[in-house]
Amino acid sequence: MNGRAEELIRDVLKTKNIKDVFFVACGGSLVDLYPGFYFLNSESGTIHAHWMTAKEMSVAPSRFLNENALVLACSHGGNTKEVINAVKVALKNGASVITMTHNPESICAREFNTVLYDWDDKTNENERPQGIVLRILNELLKEKEPDYKKYDAILEGLENIDSIVRTATSKVKNRTWLFAEKYHNEKFLYIMGSGASYSQAYGFAICSLQEMQWMDCCYLHSGEYFHGPFECTDKDHLYILLMGTGNAREMDERCLDFLKKYGNKYEVIDAKDLGIDEIDESVNEYFCPMLFYNMTVAYRTALQNKRQHPLDMRRYMGVVEY
Amino acid sequence: MNGRAEELIRDVLKTKNIKDVFFVACGGSLVDLYPGFYFLNSESGTIHAHWMTAKEMSVAPSRFLNENALVLACSHGGNTKEVINAVKVALKNGASVITMTHNPESICAREFNTVLYDWDDKTNENERPQGIVLRILNELLKEKEPDYKKYDAILEGLENIDSIVRTATSKVKNRTWLFAEKYHNEKFLYIMGSGASYSQAYGFAICSLQEMQWMDCCYLHSGEYFHGPFECTDKDHLYILLMGTGNAREMDERCLDFLKKYGNKYEVIDAKDLGIDEIDESVNEYFCPMLFYNMTVAYRTALQNKRQHPLDMRRYMGVVEY
Repeated sequence: MNGRAEELIRDVLKTKNIKDVFFVACGGSLVDLYPGFYFLNSESGTIHAHWMTAKEMSVAPSRFLNENALVLACSHGGNTKEVINAVKVALKNGASVITMTHNPESICAREFNTVLYDWDDKTNENERPQGIVLRILNELLKEKEPDYKKYDAILEGLENIDSIVRTATSKVKNRTWLFAEKYHNEKFLYIMGSGASYSQAYGFAICSLQEMQWMDCCYLHSGEYFHGPFECTDKDHLYILLMGTGNAREMDERCLDFLKKYGNKYEVIDAKDLGIDEIDESVNEYFCPMLFYNMTVAYRTALQNKRQHPLDMRRYMGVVEY
Repeated sequence: MNGRAEELIRDVLKTKNIKDVFFVACGGSLVDLYPGFYFLNSESGTIHAHWMTAKEMSVAPSRFLNENALVLACSHGGNTKEVINAVKVALKNGASVITMTHNPESICAREFNTVLYDWDDKTNENERPQGIVLRILNELLKEKEPDYKKYDAILEGLENIDSIVRTATSKVKNRTWLFAEKYHNEKFLYIMGSGASYSQAYGFAICSLQEMQWMDCCYLHSGEYFHGPFECTDKDHLYILLMGTGNAREMDERCLDFLKKYGNKYEVIDAKDLGIDEIDESVNEYFCPMLFYNMTVAYRTALQNKRQHPLDMRRYMGVVEY
């Protein structure tokens, strides 16, 4: 673990009293920032958290986007227009900014304070955006809040998550093949999650399926399912349910009970079955999204192979002007 | 306009220094709270806003849920378990609470500070939850922020929105019939919006279509469309695009340009075509969701009639235990 993330946040804290953290990005990168947003909302008594698609920060900048604000912005390619503009608005307003990007030649890397990350199969979770964000927030809370007690548990979690992910990935392989065999022609499905892992229901839907497989689907918050969406449930509808840990899990369990009774086609991806309890109970809900992300990679890869629809095939993104 | 909402917020302000407002509800009521959340985020320099499904407040209560917090909770039936529990958590933490409900016999009405609202075709927007929330926030900002300049414009908007809605409702009637005639058998559609009106894309999807018509669909944020979901777009996919006003409109316009080029089946519901500009430009974006809600009622009614699927038919909600 290189110390770049820690170095940047400590630099910020030398001169700034951070009271607001803004998480801004687009699409898959926005997904990666949500667990940090949820973590801060749950844990902090001194810092407010804001999470939004980058363009919304430019069109409706909060008045809390000021010299006491820290913006955590992520752009994989490093040149996403909406992110660059949001960062410029933030800097103009006196906020501190830390960007994350995979591209050393990008605007993010060249013009802003940035954590450059690798992105290959061997990259550890603590060097990917979700992990980098958690490391930054962990340092921030340690520095700002004397009663913050989860610092060591988070660091330990960051050490342990990779082996959990590796074991889980090999454990689910056959299951993902069976899923693809059975459902590769499905016209539509729902994906549910809650707590920090709601982000992965969203990401599974918009990145893995809509973008990479051109498969129609809808993400749902497990807690909202019972207030409308469940009326669609029957024996023919397909659901993927992400079951996380922590107090939010109750909402996922309720969905499972309902699906068992009234559904027929549903795939449960349960973090507890996949080893997340090896991480301390006080923090492991914040690591579920890392695990789930890797599970979505496994499922979409199986779908790609069965459907013969390459994950990297695009008809618009990077192909046409828009 | 009875003054119950104003009375309650003024009472709170007599003894409390409100620094955080939590908007909590479930499903359709949660939809109604989003414009207030967006308004506060955009306008306030002293108050932070939080918006979440009610259960999430109980499972992960923010440390800002304290004696300086105001909780605005809405439950149409007034007994929604998740809302009642969230309110109890809030009260236990010392927060002030104002609930909204349609049911005078409910727990919300009997046990908590509540604004009881009517809910029929003749009920003015300023007496429905979206309007009540805006009135409360308008008083709150007037009281707390000497530089708040939109007080009168909001009140004028609340006076004018009903006639805009009535005119728009009669204007779109034929268009909703044509939509239903053409698309009543559609297997799936996407609904997009941004800014304060993102709420209505969500509500159109989960309440009007998934719950009331058992129609599969997915809500999307117009700004996020280009970061994944647009790869599904082709001549066969159906989209409904809500076009609001204010700075966020740019995101909706970009979607429209793209749909014109690469789509074929799309329905545009444009607040500007439907008279929203009669309200002052500085605030009319916050009134678009009221207009859009009424448009979704018009569209779902046309769908109900063509599909012969009663809007009030439920197979689970209020029918089975869950």
